[in-house]
Amino acid sequence: MSNRILLVNGPNLNLLGTREPAIYGTATLADVERIARDAAQEAGWDLRAVQSNHEGVLIDAIHTAREDCAGIVINAGAYTHTSIAIRDALHGVALPFVEVHISNVHAREDFRHTSYLSDIAACVIVGAGVAGYADAVRHLTRSSA
Amino acid sequence: MSNRILLVNGPNLNLLGTREPAIYGTATLADVERIARDAAQEAGWDLRAVQSNHEGVLIDAIHTAREDCAGIVINAGAYTHTSIAIRDALHGVALPFVEVHISNVHAREDFRHTSYLSDIAACVIVGAGVAGYADAVRHLTRSSA
Amino acid sequence: MSNRILLVNGPNLNLLGTREPAIYGTATLADVERIARDAAQEAGWDLRAVQSNHEGVLIDAIHTAREDCAGIVINAGAYTHTSIAIRDALHGVALPFVEVHISNVHAREDFRHTSYLSDIAACVIVGAGVAGYADAVRHLTRSSA
Amino acid sequence: MSNRILLVNGPNLNLLGTREPAIYGTATLADVERIARDAAQEAGWDLRAVQSNHEGVLIDAIHTAREDCAGIVINAGAYTHTSIAIRDALHGVALPFVEVHISNVHAREDFRHTSYLSDIAACVIVGAGVAGYADAVRHLTRSSA
Amino acid sequence: MSNRILLVNGPNLNLLGTREPAIYGTATLADVERIARDAAQEAGWDLRAVQSNHEGVLIDAIHTAREDCAGIVINAGAYTHTSIAIRDALHGVALPFVEVHISNVHAREDFRHTSYLSDIAACVIVGAGVAGYADAVRHLTRSSA
Amino acid sequence: MSNRILLVNGPNLNLLGTREPAIYGTATLADVERIARDAAQEAGWDLRAVQSNHEGVLIDAIHTAREDCAGIVINAGAYTHTSIAIRDALHGVALPFVEVHISNVHAREDFRHTSYLSDIAACVIVGAGVAGYADAVRHLTRSSA
Amino acid sequence: MSNRILLVNGPNLNLLGTREPAIYGTATLADVERIARDAAQEAGWDLRAVQSNHEGVLIDAIHTAREDCAGIVINAGAYTHTSIAIRDALHGVALPFVEVHISNVHAREDFRHTSYLSDIAACVIVGAGVAGYADAVRHLTRSSA
Amino acid sequence: MSNRILLVNGPNLNLLGTREPAIYGTATLADVERIARDAAQEAGWDLRAVQSNHEGVLIDAIHTAREDCAGIVINAGAYTHTSIAIRDALHGVALPFVEVHISNVHAREDFRHTSYLSDIAACVIVGAGVAGYADAVRHLTRSSA
Amino acid sequence: MSNRILLVNGPNLNLLGTREPAIYGTATLADVERIARDAAQEAGWDLRAVQSNHEGVLIDAIHTAREDCAGIVINAGAYTHTSIAIRDALHGVALPFVEVHISNVHAREDFRHTSYLSDIAACVIVGAGVAGYADAVRHLTRSSA
Amino acid sequence: MSNRILLVNGPNLNLLGTREPAIYGTATLADVERIARDAAQEAGWDLRAVQSNHEGVLIDAIHTAREDCAGIVINAGAYTHTSIAIRDALHGVALPFVEVHISNVHAREDFRHTSYLSDIAACVIVGAGVAGYADAVRHLTRSSA
Amino acid sequence: MSNRILLVNGPNLNLLGTREPAIYGTATLADVERIARDAAQEAGWDLRAVQSNHEGVLIDAIHTAREDCAGIVINAGAYTHTSIAIRDALHGVALPFVEVHISNVHAREDFRHTSYLSDIAACVIVGAGVAGYADAVRHLTRSSA
Amino acid sequence: MSNRILLVNGPNLNLLGTREPAIYGTATLADVERIARDAAQEAGWDLRAVQSNHEGVLIDAIHTAREDCAGIVINAGAYTHTSIAIRDALHGVALPFVEVHISNVHAREDFRHTSYLSDIAACVIVGAGVAGYADAVRHLTRSSA
Repeated sequence: MSNRILLVNGPNLNLLGTREPAIYGTATLADVERIARDAAQEAGWDLRAVQSNHEGVLIDAIHTAREDCAGIVINAGAYTHTSIAIRDALHGVALPFVEVHISNVHAREDFRHTSYLSDIAACVIVGAGVAGYADAVRHLTRSSA
Repeated sequence: MSNRILLVNGPNLNLLGTREPAIYGTATLADVERIARDAAQEAGWDLRAVQSNHEGVLIDAIHTAREDCAGIVINAGAYTHTSIAIRDALHGVALPFVEVHISNVHAREDFRHTSYLSDIAACVIVGAGVAGYADAVRHLTRSSA
Repeated sequence: MSNRILLVNGPNLNLLGTREPAIYGTATLADVERIARDAAQEAGWDLRAVQSNHEGVLIDAIHTAREDCAGIVINAGAYTHTSIAIRDALHGVALPFVEVHISNVHAREDFRHTSYLSDIAACVIVGAGVAGYADAVRHLTRSSA
Repeated sequence: MSNRILLVNGPNLNLLGTREPAIYGTATLADVERIARDAAQEAGWDLRAVQSNHEGVLIDAIHTAREDCAGIVINAGAYTHTSIAIRDALHGVALPFVEVHISNVHAREDFRHTSYLSDIAACVIVGAGVAGYADAVRHLTRSSA
Repeated sequence: MSNRILLVNGPNLNLLGTREPAIYGTATLADVERIARDAAQEAGWDLRAVQSNHEGVLIDAIHTAREDCAGIVINAGAYTHTSIAIRDALHGVALPFVEVHISNVHAREDFRHTSYLSDIAACVIVGAGVAGYADAVRHLTRSSA
Repeated sequence: MSNRILLVNGPNLNLLGTREPAIYGTATLADVERIARDAAQEAGWDLRAVQSNHEGVLIDAIHTAREDCAGIVINAGAYTHTSIAIRDALHGVALPFVEVHISNVHAREDFRHTSYLSDIAACVIVGAGVAGYADAVRHLTRSSA
Repeated sequence: MSNRILLVNGPNLNLLGTREPAIYGTATLADVERIARDAAQEAGWDLRAVQSNHEGVLIDAIHTAREDCAGIVINAGAYTHTSIAIRDALHGVALPFVEVHISNVHAREDFRHTSYLSDIAACVIVGAGVAGYADAVRHLTRSSA
Repeated sequence: MSNRILLVNGPNLNLLGTREPAIYGTATLADVERIARDAAQEAGWDLRAVQSNHEGVLIDAIHTAREDCAGIVINAGAYTHTSIAIRDALHGVALPFVEVHISNVHAREDFRHTSYLSDIAACVIVGAGVAGYADAVRHLTRSSA
Repeated sequence: MSNRILLVNGPNLNLLGTREPAIYGTATLADVERIARDAAQEAGWDLRAVQSNHEGVLIDAIHTAREDCAGIVINAGAYTHTSIAIRDALHGVALPFVEVHISNVHAREDFRHTSYLSDIAACVIVGAGVAGYADAVRHLTRSSA
Repeated sequence: MSNRILLVNGPNLNLLGTREPAIYGTATLADVERIARDAAQEAGWDLRAVQSNHEGVLIDAIHTAREDCAGIVINAGAYTHTSIAIRDALHGVALPFVEVHISNVHAREDFRHTSYLSDIAACVIVGAGVAGYADAVRHLTRSSA
Repeated sequence: MSNRILLVNGPNLNLLGTREPAIYGTATLADVERIARDAAQEAGWDLRAVQSNHEGVLIDAIHTAREDCAGIVINAGAYTHTSIAIRDALHGVALPFVEVHISNVHAREDFRHTSYLSDIAACVIVGAGVAGYADAVRHLTRSSA
Repeated sequence: MSNRILLVNGPNLNLLGTREPAIYGTATLADVERIARDAAQEAGWDLRAVQSNHEGVLIDAIHTAREDCAGIVINAGAYTHTSIAIRDALHGVALPFVEVHISNVHAREDFRHTSYLSDIAACVIVGAGVAGYADAVRHLTRSSA
């Protein structure tokens, strides 16, 4: 099995560090990807990162993971609550994945309280800030150990 | 009137034949497109096929049908349950269309039991496997006869 | 296995051809039964037809299918939306069945949008007119091939 | 046009006069039918009465009205709240009908507050006791005058 | 006991005969009041009529009925669906009342399908046109006989 | 008072022993009727049994109990969840009745979790298998002792 | 700040003492106003009382309180459950107010379980009978002490 | 056709400029009426203004518009969310009307998210402050041009 | 601050003028963009226009507005009702925006009655036709004056 | 396997015989425990009884059953409708259990119509009075025979 | 009859005065108990106070009131919204009780808007601060006078 | 600030390692407490552990944390979904807490999909198995660093 993780960040996460710092903190998307990659490398794993505001691009990226990844860490942003298509993509590639949210979605609007991903996720980490990405990576690497 | 059908396949249908064969069988997307084209040609019709994981690409494709197609066969996959935009595109081009689902969506999760397309479809075929595409094509060709 | 199909038509379908032709067309119940029988015979199959406005008669008829039929085509009419008893009868005889509706029930009143049959049907064909019966028969004969 | 009214009484109305007199009074089904017939005859009309506990028998009876009746008075009893099939039968024969309930169904259990008949009825009379049948007949005869 | 009926017509019924004749017919409010008064006088009763677009005026009028009326006929118009205060007024004066609607409210918007009056009414007459007022008056006079 | 119990079995229970034995066991309808009759006879009571797939036949049968029975044991099968008419029949004859279900309906589909009979039943026994019929009979005989 | 309280009584409270004494007791509106005034005067305060069945009159009265009152005691009767306009008036004058109900509204019909006033009230007193008015006055006078 | 607009302001709008300036700004009702009249006069139109806290007065005012107005601009305040009677009045006079809200009602309490007016309005303008009244007037004058 | 407005038109608005003219009129997308640009230029502002059927493209475009625009006018079409991602993009760039709909969405299907944008919009203009775009632009330019 | 049954009675059942005898009869908790023990002993079984008003004590007691009991009879009283923790305890010890209610909970308040226990119970006996405990014990002893 | 009141304070009320003073003020549990006892003693009554975080302890305490108390004042804290068992205990001891909440629960989270106690309480006092306890005691002593 | 964490395990977690190992694994409660304590000690922190099946005991324990702990890790088990009292206790002590669930509650019964704790938690970790406890401890120690 591959030793690579796919890191998927969804819509508006390119704004990280600039958008609503009171909620999301000051770390940028680059920081997030570095934190996740560092956690992967500590375990001797590799990590490929993708971010897009396009639902279709995210689905395409998830499909590619079938070929060379052993697991997925995904923060699907707003698509978490609306995209059955991303759910189907994750289900279709049949890899374990961890759902991450930087802020505590349960403390926000009602429409952020449902997720099309959680019930098929291996693990869900909510509100741990950008450190949650590292926890997510470690969950995958220790589960595959 | 044109003698051409547009065949639209939505998100994750490119995985056909590799994804959850217990539900979807072993036929690939290429098989599906061939089956539909054969049915069209038997009736002396033509068929143009598109598949995309991008909602916007599907909408763009539906728009093009206005120019040279007499009907649409669509399996919008997960977008069936979430995309008002695809509904509006189909309504906007004002062509008869048949909604197809390979598996029996009524036997799956609750969120697959609603469709933004069914009430404006000419016909809905659910659970007939890939043969449903041929039935859908025949419905359009015999209705236009 | 038997080579016979049971065709079941539910309440008010005896009015076919006389009732709301804008919705149901001008074909009569006799036409429907002939169309379905022709499709069966093309595949070398037999077909027994029953129509009743009585839920109990429909259940009794479904029970008899256990003895000499390989599948059922059913348009349960209004009972589709209200009869758990017919669902249980179909489940009890354990034969594959196709649910047919002549008109597009999804485009009609809300109470016609739920079916007690769909999730246990092999296939559901909605809005294809009386030709849907032939498609339904063919689905059963080709599945049993 | 015919000068005949079909009077349809549904399940358990054969118990009238014996069942829960505090709610339904002491008049029997025969009384009800006589009251309705008298009102019809006052207007120079005829009336045919049917009562059954069988949904299918009621549907069959409604179908026969197409041939020789100009309107229907119906107290569908409990089927009012559960039978889409009777609704379809009334709609199918395309005759004006009046929905009658002896007791005030709005003052009873929640499940008696919805009717599958009311929105397509010409007129609905609730809680007027057995005299409501006469009012219903008069509504039909004066509307057809 | 008094031999007088209070006839209450609610908001917008002053427009009768001018507003949406396809739904309400061409009879005016004066016609309605005359029809009801005639029915009362046939039974040897008197009738006092009030119409107002003001909820408070209607409540005040209902209160006065305690002094000199034996029953109330009320078409509360739109207040039927929104006014608990009118319900309380009717309940407070403890007189039998008949709820009348000229058109079939069950065939109109959903918010017209609930009534704060029906469950405490003696009788409800819906869709009988302006003749429904005479039926309502007769119900009260014959019940009090 | 009579010493007889009416045993009513509803739709599809004629299939007992042949249908879904994992859920319903292997006892047949004849076995069920014998078990119930034995329990009645142990208490010195008589038992009359009826089974039908027709809602109307069940209602007719319940009506006859008024004449010669002291209580009713009923497994209304699927009609439990859909038939207000059977509820009204049981209420109309004013006899104590016990509602029985062989399997645990609470562990099955959502639409089997509501019963139109339970709130007016004397006692409800769910999931005790065919032995539940004997318990039900004993409940009636000991209550009448 | 003013030392005056506005006492507002809503629809049908003019019937107090005559209407449903089992629920509301025998005290009249005059009694209620005297009880409240006495409680105000004990604290060295003044009280102005208004009652109306007209929502608009109640709103106008609340508006006047801005000029010369320090708080409001209100029993809005049925308007409690339906009037956003009274809520807005109370909010607009920005005075502390106490919501009073003589009977226990929680023990009555469902539509009396919601209040458009409670969440912006200073205090809510339900079911304390007419003595609740005195408690309400005391709450305002002691809060302003 | 008349060249006059009726401007209707509902409950509590007489408090404008004094009530919750953070939400509604400092313009008074007189300012609002002047702004709207100016916009009308720019287009060579006349404008008659009414404000009331009484639902009935608003309905009466709307009725008068039939005689001499070509359109209505209405901010029904809280009655927007509760008054079917005002809806019926607007529908009854059959004039085009524009619904205006000064603040963004969608950002406030849930019960302000539904309007009985919007679906029959010609145009809805929300959150544009008092300038929204001028926009509303211009919509009517340019539509009638 | 910049003097530029971003005009965003969502899915299917490229069909304007060709699609359902009874609902949307005959103006094309080019007309809409010209009308909006004219309104901007009257106020001495600039306007950049984008239309796409791709949710991701719309999000990307909104992100670019942070750099050089002072406000956004958006008709998100069907995405209004389904896209939390576009909501987040608008929130993320922290610019005032006006939500525009050409037709009266409140008069159409239920699923068009909810908007993920309205509660965070500065202003919402519904049903004003293509002129609504000019009103929207003016709202932004006058608010920033 | 052990031949012992654990009998668990929940909150307020210590009041049996003193509380609402119209609903619960006059038997005391001691009577109930004796009736159940007698039924167990008839089958050669033992029975240990516990009653507590403390959810935690009930959970602890259920846990002990793992060591020395073959089944559980439980009347969890009000906790039936609110305690997922008791459900989990019963599930955790993996013993067959029978749910008993003395009165007919289906005929009482709505919140008593849902049970967190029923769907995982072996059998549910409702409304059989204290004799239901004996029936429950017999169900367990005969199932284990 | 006894002249004693039981004062019951539920979970987390031991934190009073230390927890969220903005909502609950600075009075401690000891203060509350003294305020209530003083009010009882003014009326010549006695008062026994209990506080516990354990639902079972509260139920046990309520049961003891049967022996020596004439009424109960209860602030069940969070159990108000979740405990049917406490409701049943209060109902079982058949003593009049007053429900008290220090803060205005209607202004807090939705799940605090329902109470299992209110509909069977004699009186409910919400938002009156700790003084509400004295009001509650006075309600009981004056009702029993 | 203290360097101690309180670890709270709720109902049935004492069964860990023995109960449903397919869902919860084979680690025992002692293992869980050791894993959490090791993670605390790695960061130079202390940890006090409590487990109880009693809601009240858990609340009491949370209260004690105010005195000597800097944060709480809690797996409230079934009380997660039903206990507002535990929520209030956590809110009352005003310490950051992490909510942990060993299994993926989102993949289980519907009633496990809501949590009274999540929206006020600092962080929520679901489905990470017993390792989730260590992640939770690390979240608290790194946040307090």
